[in-house]
Amino acid sequence: LVESWSFLDTVESNFRPLVVIELAKGTKEETIEWFTKRIMDKKANGGAQLLIKPLVTENGVENIYLVGASHLRLLLGAETVGLVKECSDNSMRTFTYSSRKTFKDFADDNHNFLTMAECQYIIKHELENLRAKDEKMIPGYPQAKLYPGKSIVRRLLTSGILVQIFPLHDREELKKLRHSWYGRVKVGYQPLDDIRCYFGETIALYFGFLEYFTFALIPMAVIGIPYYVFAWEDYDKYVMFATFNLLWSTVILEVWKRICAILTYRWGTLLMKRQFEEPRPGFHGVLGINPVTGREEPVYSSIKRQLRIYLVSLPFVCLCLYFSLYVMMIYFDLEQWALDYHEENESNFSSLMLYVPSIIYAVVIEVMNRIYRYAAEFLTSWENHRLESSYQNHLILKVLVFNFLNCFASLFYIAFVLFDMKLLRQSLATLLITSQILNQFAESLLPYWLQKRYNRRMKKRMCSQKTDMDLSLADQVNMEKEMGTYLGTFDDYLELFLQFGYVSLFSCVYPLAAVFAVLNNITEIYSDALKMCRVYKRPFAEPTANIGVWQLAFETMSVISVVTNCILIGMSPQVDALFPDSKMDLVLTVALVEHLLLAIKFIMAFVIPDKPRDIQMKLARLEFESLEALKQQVRAFQMQLHFLLIHH
Amino acid sequence: LVESWSFLDTVESNFRPLVVIELAKGTKEETIEWFTKRIMDKKANGGAQLLIKPLVTENGVENIYLVGASHLRLLLGAETVGLVKECSDNSMRTFTYSSRKTFKDFADDNHNFLTMAECQYIIKHELENLRAKDEKMIPGYPQAKLYPGKSIVRRLLTSGILVQIFPLHDREELKKLRHSWYGRVKVGYQPLDDIRCYFGETIALYFGFLEYFTFALIPMAVIGIPYYVFAWEDYDKYVMFATFNLLWSTVILEVWKRICAILTYRWGTLLMKRQFEEPRPGFHGVLGINPVTGREEPVYSSIKRQLRIYLVSLPFVCLCLYFSLYVMMIYFDLEQWALDYHEENESNFSSLMLYVPSIIYAVVIEVMNRIYRYAAEFLTSWENHRLESSYQNHLILKVLVFNFLNCFASLFYIAFVLFDMKLLRQSLATLLITSQILNQFAESLLPYWLQKRYNRRMKKRMCSQKTDMDLSLADQVNMEKEMGTYLGTFDDYLELFLQFGYVSLFSCVYPLAAVFAVLNNITEIYSDALKMCRVYKRPFAEPTANIGVWQLAFETMSVISVVTNCILIGMSPQVDALFPDSKMDLVLTVALVEHLLLAIKFIMAFVIPDKPRDIQMKLARLEFESLEALKQQVRAFQMQLHFLLIHH
Repeated sequence: LVESWSFLDTVESNFRPLVVIELAKGTKEETIEWFTKRIMDKKANGGAQLLIKPLVTENGVENIYLVGASHLRLLLGAETVGLVKECSDNSMRTFTYSSRKTFKDFADDNHNFLTMAECQYIIKHELENLRAKDEKMIPGYPQAKLYPGKSIVRRLLTSGILVQIFPLHDREELKKLRHSWYGRVKVGYQPLDDIRCYFGETIALYFGFLEYFTFALIPMAVIGIPYYVFAWEDYDKYVMFATFNLLWSTVILEVWKRICAILTYRWGTLLMKRQFEEPRPGFHGVLGINPVTGREEPVYSSIKRQLRIYLVSLPFVCLCLYFSLYVMMIYFDLEQWALDYHEENESNFSSLMLYVPSIIYAVVIEVMNRIYRYAAEFLTSWENHRLESSYQNHLILKVLVFNFLNCFASLFYIAFVLFDMKLLRQSLATLLITSQILNQFAESLLPYWLQKRYNRRMKKRMCSQKTDMDLSLADQVNMEKEMGTYLGTFDDYLELFLQFGYVSLFSCVYPLAAVFAVLNNITEIYSDALKMCRVYKRPFAEPTANIGVWQLAFETMSVISVVTNCILIGMSPQVDALFPDSKMDLVLTVALVEHLLLAIKFIMAFVIPDKPRDIQMKLARLEFESLEALKQQVRAFQMQLHFLLIHH
Repeated sequence: LVESWSFLDTVESNFRPLVVIELAKGTKEETIEWFTKRIMDKKANGGAQLLIKPLVTENGVENIYLVGASHLRLLLGAETVGLVKECSDNSMRTFTYSSRKTFKDFADDNHNFLTMAECQYIIKHELENLRAKDEKMIPGYPQAKLYPGKSIVRRLLTSGILVQIFPLHDREELKKLRHSWYGRVKVGYQPLDDIRCYFGETIALYFGFLEYFTFALIPMAVIGIPYYVFAWEDYDKYVMFATFNLLWSTVILEVWKRICAILTYRWGTLLMKRQFEEPRPGFHGVLGINPVTGREEPVYSSIKRQLRIYLVSLPFVCLCLYFSLYVMMIYFDLEQWALDYHEENESNFSSLMLYVPSIIYAVVIEVMNRIYRYAAEFLTSWENHRLESSYQNHLILKVLVFNFLNCFASLFYIAFVLFDMKLLRQSLATLLITSQILNQFAESLLPYWLQKRYNRRMKKRMCSQKTDMDLSLADQVNMEKEMGTYLGTFDDYLELFLQFGYVSLFSCVYPLAAVFAVLNNITEIYSDALKMCRVYKRPFAEPTANIGVWQLAFETMSVISVVTNCILIGMSPQVDALFPDSKMDLVLTVALVEHLLLAIKFIMAFVIPDKPRDIQMKLARLEFESLEALKQQVRAFQMQLHFLLIHH
């Protein structure tokens, strides 16, 4: 129990900085004093019972604070957030302090039982759950109102006193991770478990999905190559390719659910109980009674929100969609102009010019997507959703609809209005390749270059020839606090989603799309890894059990692609030639095949279990055990009662 | 606490018989002694701690036993099964004995706090959970093996020693219920809450669904009548009717989920935790280790079961489907023959003869459905599923596929191969009406008549002129034990499912189907009510939160009906005439409309929340409270620990 004493003290030697808090320059003394006192205060007094220390640099104190916690405090925190860890008997169980001895690798002096990412997640959770007691406002800032139960950190953030909270990198660990992840050229899987230990489950799951998706695309790519090499144009080969493609896309999405279950079971998040959702930081309203918690807190009328959604957001989205279609029509004018130019002066230059409109259009699409993304974020934030999940759903819906139309409208138009397969193939290839190049550039290389330049300048300013590893803690914090913030996996999934659209929607026209997707994803893994390790601040780990709404988005895309591919095959001249007498029969056959494929898809999705059998068994076992424990409790209580009655 | 003493005694005056156990004639004395001892034994000794009394009739003891329980025992049992009851503050909470005072209408002397159906359910649960300790066999029957943890009642049932267990009717209550349910001619809702109190949630939910479905069909019926009266044949009216029909069927299925949530929230089953599923009584295997519970119990290899399913059941089902199609072809021959006959000798008789093949076919379909049902039950039981839910799923799948094909194959053939709309209408009408008449007869009137005859004979034998109300307990038990056993809601839902098919699959051809469905359902409510109250033994209440797999079945049917209706409309000569130049355009338009309708259906199903807002809020509130309680526990524990550390 000796170790446990550190729980109560703040001895310097035990202090391991985990999280950095940056307060605004010129924050009042009384505010800082009150805030640090609340963070250090005992749980019993409503504090967070964490350790906090100002960062002392050469320039003196800079309103930057380091937060840590004793080992015992972290273990108790792990129980509060409901972490699930592996037991000695290899089963996964919710961690409790009282049953700590039954967990694998647990020892009172083993400070690596919780990973650093888990410790940082616990500290973030504790900080966010530091709530106002009877304070009416933040001391020193009368305009920053508080009410009992309001999260102090969230109020500090919204009133600008708190600039940012971020977890520190572990340079030692990061170096190891970088090496095993992308440091050497090797063929093999990513070190997903290490990524999860360092960055948390959400990010590890994204890289898991990216890797899985790349592997899943390989069969398509392999089958697609001969179509290009031998210039196959036989309809039966196209039909076979498309059919394989459609069934394959269903299979891979179903199998992903199983792999995801395996991963998250191993990581413990599959079993983690959902935490009760607090209002998101940006939410505002007038004080009222929350009907769910019965507490006094800001409420915002649902009708007002509906009005904002239907009278402002919806028309705005429609306007954007219209604008996107308008730009598309300009693109077609440009395309026509390039064609005319090529016909007039036939030369190498003019045939290169044929590709220019597509490339310009691809760039414009990317730019529009990015501008729209900001607008959508602004609008969704203005809609004032109370919960982060509801905010995310509305944002994702807005962004997905626009991105889908923006990226694919021109292809649909070429395919089903112009019936120009040659242009479709060319346009698809240009859009896909241009957008991939732009994305790689904008997402990773550009920030990496900026970061590198900044680091160089920083080092020069610090007038030191030290290598990265020798940097003092103060230097490290100062460097990391200037790094960009990783905004979550949204953009990364969106990119994959659009790529999946390019590959599957018109797969029978351009089988080579899968090849480009595979090539892109291999570099994407490296550039995303670089981005995570080098460019951005370390993000807080976020436990998650699946890829959420993206599963649904990918499944919807694969349903749409059944329809488009069937129509494309039906339109091909080869299939056309098979029904020389009656176009009716052709259309009816295509419709029949389409319905059959859709039916097979749904049956397959229904038949393939979402979790592998052994995970199902393990979950059933846990459920059985908890029911048994409950029964034991009831029985023990009944026996007590019984005893009481007899000896009354 | 005085009342509580009865918990320990078996004083005659407190004994209220709830459940009847009938043992086989000639059961050995030692078996009976052992069994009754185990039932009465204290919980601490592994007994059920219930009260049991032999039924004494004029002919002496007849191996019939009455089971009851003290009030306190029932309350503790209510906690064990996890009943959810209404609290004084109108919220629904899981009942626990320690918090009993907070529940509405609870008083130590109020024996009506638990309904009789709930008491009987608790007793059934306790009897089924009476488990073998160290017995190796049932005393007196060495061939009836036991092993630790085996349910004694299930072994007694499978070895034929226990003939049946059934709950007793409450003549007083039943009379009241009958009166308010179907005793007087009235327009109004069924007394669903009373039905639920008397028969339990599963049956109340069936009647709730039947009533809801009938009301939901009324708009279709009302819109359908003018089509018949004015002999509308305009395509636009048909299109309107079909479109309304399709959207309507989506809406009603979504709204039902909400109504179901309202009902089951009020009844407490929405919040009830799922009990851990025990092996079904018929399951057999060799002793092994169950991987989930870790207990020694019979296990049966999953591969063997798969072999039975795929090598025997699947071929058998396919054979039955083939046979059904073969019978259908015979029907068409008959139909042709009747037509020829009518053409040769045109008379009133011959035009009546035109309906005969359809009627014969309808009867044959019903007979085949019933025979197949037995075969499916036998096969599924032979597949040796371990869990009742898995058994039910396999049975329902087998039965649904066959019934769907058997009932609708001829209609599909007429519509999409023969293109004979007149015959389709005639055939649809005949099939629908004949099957409804047959069902009403076979399900309710026939058993009612048999039961009535039997009752008359019984009374004559007892040589008494007593009325029903004066019957002694012994007479009541003797009468009820001979009544038929209600086999669950399966057949009732199946009937509704097929009816939904008749109404929606070809709705634009025969709008009058909804009218017949409504008429049938109104009488169905009465005849089913009669069947429950008069014909069958009282069934054990079964808590349930929804109509389960039937929701999915109805939704699938409504998707299929979008496809069929779109094709039918496309085939109608009026729509045909709209596209005089190009059949292609017609087909493409129909396909487009169909895809739009399907998309709208899925979006509607996605957008309409499954639970009404207030139920969602109540559930969120409960979740919040349980999380808060958990947090409190953790906090209390941490404070204890803290205290310990300080005062160490």
